[in-house]
This record gives sequence, C-alpha cells and structure tokens, in this order.
Amino acid sequence: MTYDPNNIFAKILRGEIPCEKLYEDEHTLAFMDIMPQAEGHCLVIPKQASTGLLDADPACFAPLLATVQKLARAAKIAMKADGVTIMQFNGSAAGQTVFHLHVHIIPRKDGVPLKGHTGQMEQSALLKARADQIRAALSV
Amino acid sequence: MTYDPNNIFAKILRGEIPCEKLYEDEHTLAFMDIMPQAEGHCLVIPKQASTGLLDADPACFAPLLATVQKLARAAKIAMKADGVTIMQFNGSAAGQTVFHLHVHIIPRKDGVPLKGHTGQMEQSALLKARADQIRAALSV
Repeated sequence: MTYDPNNIFAKILRGEIPCEKLYEDEHTLAFMDIMPQAEGHCLVIPKQASTGLLDADPACFAPLLATVQKLARAAKIAMKADGVTIMQFNGSAAGQTVFHLHVHIIPRKDGVPLKGHTGQMEQSALLKARADQIRAALSV
Repeated sequence: MTYDPNNIFAKILRGEIPCEKLYEDEHTLAFMDIMPQAEGHCLVIPKQASTGLLDADPACFAPLLATVQKLARAAKIAMKADGVTIMQFNGSAAGQTVFHLHVHIIPRKDGVPLKGHTGQMEQSALLKARADQIRAALSV
C-alpha cells in the first residue's frame, strides 16, 4: 500500500482539519481519539509519513515511544485509571482505518471492558474536558 | 509496582526456562506466545528490566520497536496474513499477566476475529512449526 498524503492524520498534521491536541514536539503529535473506546483514549502519531509500523522509518521509533510513554503516564493519572492498553493496527484485517501510523493509548479501569468501535463520535465538550485533564497531568 | 526478577520472562531471559526463540540481539528477545490469539502470535521483550511501558527506560525504545517491526514483517509473511495487530498491556486492568514489558505481535487474516485468552497452551509441535516458518521469513 502506498501512503496517501490526504489521509485524515496527514491533514491534521498540516493543520487542515482540527484536533483536540494534547502534545507536540519535533517528531510527534498527540491528540484525542474522537471515537474513544474508554475515557481518555488518545492517539500518538509520528510526523514522518508511513502507512503503519511495517513501512515506518526506524528513525521515528525512539521519539514515537517516548511520546507514547509520556501520554500513557499522563492519561492514566488524569483518568484515575488502573492500567493502560497500547494498541497499533496494521492493515484493515487488524482494524486499521486511517493509514498513517498511529498508536492508541487507552486508560483502563478494573473490571471495565473496552468499548468496541461504534463509529459514534464523542461530544466535543466531553473530549475537551478530558483533554484538559490530560494536559494538566502532562504539565506536572 | 516493583519489578519481580522471578517473573516468567526474566527466567526466560536468564535461560532458566525454555522458549520457542525466534530472534535475539543485544537488547531484545522474540519468542512464540504459548497461548496464541491467532496463528503466529509472538512476543518481543527488551532485555532491560521494567514491569511495563510506563516505567521503562527510554533507551530501550528504538531497539524494541526495531525488533517488533522485524518480527511483524516476518510473521505476516510467514503466516500469509493480511495485517498485524500490535498490543502492549500495562497493569492487570489492561490484561497484563506477566510483569516484564512485552509487545504482542499478532498476524491477522481478513474476517478472522482475535481469539480470547483461553488460558489453554498451544501444542508445542504446532508452535515449533509456526516458529520455523517465521524464522525462515526472518532470514530472507
């Protein structure tokens, strides 16, 4: 599969469509998933273009996981979660829907199963409120 | 949570218990998951001790993801899969059962849902046969 520069995350990176941004550095961007599978579900993407992990330039790996770690810690604290599930999908067969490498960070609470992908968008006020909590935890 | 040096992956790293090894380098080890959620399900672990991603030393991130990429490519080819799911769990609430950082690599086929963790061990001859296929794909 060739990389489509008009995928939704490429457009977010170019500022052509908005996102609820949590964190940004030279190599990565983190923002809220608009169809969360749990409260505080967010995404980290490298700025470098690849459809997934298999075709990614290894140069992006260290900064990518550093941002994933940073966000996982903050989202866990902010959501008062008991654990964090990290997922990354490659190919439609694996559940990938946007073909720019992205890592899911999903705060988990004891006994609460993951919600499936309903295709339903979360209310933006609710996303913003959770994003405010995660941003606050990031800045501690 | 403090790291328990007697967890099962620490014992595998010390050679105290066996594994169906796929790949090893200075920083990482890859081997078959003995309770696969799909054919070719394997694991990558850093040699450095941490219970999960949140307490990991960022120095391990680049070699860890490089090995995950290598194994994901090989397992996909070897299992003639359509995609690959990458998962990493932090805490019991997220489904973590062994408290040494590990990354799941699960080859996926179109229309085949992931099996749950049944707690049932795969036959070792079957694991070895799949491991042989993945090792062959790694050496191409």
